[in-house]
Amino acid sequence: MSPLLTRADAAEMDRDDGVAAARRELELPPGTIYLDGNSLGPLPRAAARRVEEVVRRQWGQDLIRSWNLHGWIDLPRRLGSLVAPLVGASGDEVVVTDSVSVNLFKLLAAALRLRHGRPVILTEGENFPTDLYMAQGLVDLLGERARLEVVPRRRLRDVLDDEVAVLMLTHVDFRSGELHDMADLTAAAHDAGALALWDLSHSAGVLPVRLDENDVDLAVGCGYKYLNGGPGAPAFAFAARRLHRELRSPLWGWMGHASPFDFSPTFHPADGVDRLLCGTPPVLSLAALQDGLELVARVGVATLRKRSCELGDLLIRLVEQECGGHGLILVSPTDAERRGSQVSYRHPEGYAIMQALIARGVVGDFRAPDLLRFGLSPLCLRFVDLWDAASHLRAVLEDEEWRRPEHRRRAPVT
Amino acid sequence: MSPLLTRADAAEMDRDDGVAAARRELELPPGTIYLDGNSLGPLPRAAARRVEEVVRRQWGQDLIRSWNLHGWIDLPRRLGSLVAPLVGASGDEVVVTDSVSVNLFKLLAAALRLRHGRPVILTEGENFPTDLYMAQGLVDLLGERARLEVVPRRRLRDVLDDEVAVLMLTHVDFRSGELHDMADLTAAAHDAGALALWDLSHSAGVLPVRLDENDVDLAVGCGYKYLNGGPGAPAFAFAARRLHRELRSPLWGWMGHASPFDFSPTFHPADGVDRLLCGTPPVLSLAALQDGLELVARVGVATLRKRSCELGDLLIRLVEQECGGHGLILVSPTDAERRGSQVSYRHPEGYAIMQALIARGVVGDFRAPDLLRFGLSPLCLRFVDLWDAASHLRAVLEDEEWRRPEHRRRAPVT
Repeated sequence: MSPLLTRADAAEMDRDDGVAAARRELELPPGTIYLDGNSLGPLPRAAARRVEEVVRRQWGQDLIRSWNLHGWIDLPRRLGSLVAPLVGASGDEVVVTDSVSVNLFKLLAAALRLRHGRPVILTEGENFPTDLYMAQGLVDLLGERARLEVVPRRRLRDVLDDEVAVLMLTHVDFRSGELHDMADLTAAAHDAGALALWDLSHSAGVLPVRLDENDVDLAVGCGYKYLNGGPGAPAFAFAARRLHRELRSPLWGWMGHASPFDFSPTFHPADGVDRLLCGTPPVLSLAALQDGLELVARVGVATLRKRSCELGDLLIRLVEQECGGHGLILVSPTDAERRGSQVSYRHPEGYAIMQALIARGVVGDFRAPDLLRFGLSPLCLRFVDLWDAASHLRAVLEDEEWRRPEHRRRAPVT
Repeated sequence: MSPLLTRADAAEMDRDDGVAAARRELELPPGTIYLDGNSLGPLPRAAARRVEEVVRRQWGQDLIRSWNLHGWIDLPRRLGSLVAPLVGASGDEVVVTDSVSVNLFKLLAAALRLRHGRPVILTEGENFPTDLYMAQGLVDLLGERARLEVVPRRRLRDVLDDEVAVLMLTHVDFRSGELHDMADLTAAAHDAGALALWDLSHSAGVLPVRLDENDVDLAVGCGYKYLNGGPGAPAFAFAARRLHRELRSPLWGWMGHASPFDFSPTFHPADGVDRLLCGTPPVLSLAALQDGLELVARVGVATLRKRSCELGDLLIRLVEQECGGHGLILVSPTDAERRGSQVSYRHPEGYAIMQALIARGVVGDFRAPDLLRFGLSPLCLRFVDLWDAASHLRAVLEDEEWRRPEHRRRAPVT
């Protein structure tokens, strides 16, 4: 048995804090322990200033001229080139545009085209729902030409055959936080002649992703989680350079045209990954993403990953120490190497427990039917924050605070 | 011949100004005559304050709780219900989401499904390029099951037959400003058993649109032109209530799910027009749209239309009076009833002339190959502004300012 950990021990761990300077660049509400950076990352102070500049100066004063003057027209590419090094890609392989869902649709359709004659999109049932839905919608649209196969995780390798056009997986399981072996599964897809499409929504900015090194074909990811891009920030889309010439999104919007301002009546796709652009992008939301990306780059993904693993290990240990015997079941891997940046527990009263925690200023989230999720943003969390969180959790469980009626009322967004 | 109009005459017309109060709610840069509200509407002062609140308070302080606390989750519906009365629809027939391009894809695919067995999307070559491209991309994806027919405007009625699933048109021609007869063309589509899909990007907020009264089936429109929603503001999508039950977008994102937070593995579309939602929406850009919508509603579309017609009539008259003989060819209808809220001229040196005008603070835009466009936002323009604009245009033409090299250099966005 390891000795009991005290708050002083956690504070001692914080003394050698490599991210304190970066944390000061984030707006963190006082009295809140924020364990939901995997749903919405906190506000970089610089982003608040930037949005104000974009609104008041660029929109308000320079108006339409800002498309050239302030480079609005290049934002999807410029932000893409900032995302790229964070996920192990080259600057010309990533654009920021639309939502994860819409980008999935583009890339799944492109994959079926690149692997013409192979009708299957293969995935696992544990994938994030919108990933499943977008594939279902595409298959429904294409009729007999496409099929979605959803199998349990352990069977993915067995069903990879010459019918499969693309293996679509989310790198980190949004429920358990379990991490897929990207190198191994990508290689397995390639061995079967299929493409590999990864959803990096829960990985980008918090753990090393090596798209080019692992020979990944296609990827999407979210801007508003660990990249701190703001609520509903536009998403990124990656396509390996070797595929660009043949890559065809079915969403032929004018921003993906080779010469959008020629106003030609016929679509000719832009060179490279730019062809994944579609309509006019939401400039305010796009612009807000830049500072989060720069902050992550400044600290470095390797540093963030190391800290994220330590935070996860500590939280697991503290919950065991403080809350053992209260029926919480850990569903995340204990081995940090196999875990993304979150720790999740099952409990039949999970919803009410999370509401009681939130009322105490400990903000995690709940996922149906019974999952408490604690997202660990290494940019904004100290070790003592986790000690305090575990201590609040113990109080909620010991005093059965979750029985209070106000914690059982369901809100539209859980 | 009408008598010459002086600047004093224009100033006299401004004395009885029904929109002066509304104009003061807009940020208008000093020294600029802004004739490009049809590309990017000016900033409502309230929108600047709102975005700041959403960023600093809602994102920065309340973080993930804002989805419930500040109603982020309802923004697409709430904004849709504000757009609805401006286009003659009911509040439950419109949502704000994604871009015009993406919404076109959803609705075109839905139309082909609603008119199963009819393969044709019918449109005119003068349609806005992204509308053509999105249809081309969908048809390319669907292979033999769909076909795009692009015909000259005068032939639209002749080719409406039982092969046509949907007639897709933009209400106001983005080049000439010519207005389609929505009632008549919608009825013609219905007579042929087809659906009618209108792109209202250049109509919404500036002229009366009567979607329900004209029995229109489907529509899309832009948030950043006459609705003043900010650069790349999310777009709206309309579907007539009678179609909701059978309406199927192929983009099955989780926000269009009946119960997104059940995280069910299978897609079940939400009731009503909500099923057109897809991924997580860009909240900052969405929120910025509200004040522009409220401003238009406060002044009233009928008032705006009356003023817009007067502005257009005056500009045509002044350009004739001040700039006659300099080779400008009016391509917009002289009859205000047949014209949207813009006046366009052709000139072989159109690009350089527009650059010279912009250098003088008169901001219109240029559309290849030779079109000068003057958008007339009735919320922000006075009659004297048009007198001054015509006077600048005369100077540019008389002194051949457009010959200067700096006006001939092409920028990425024209």
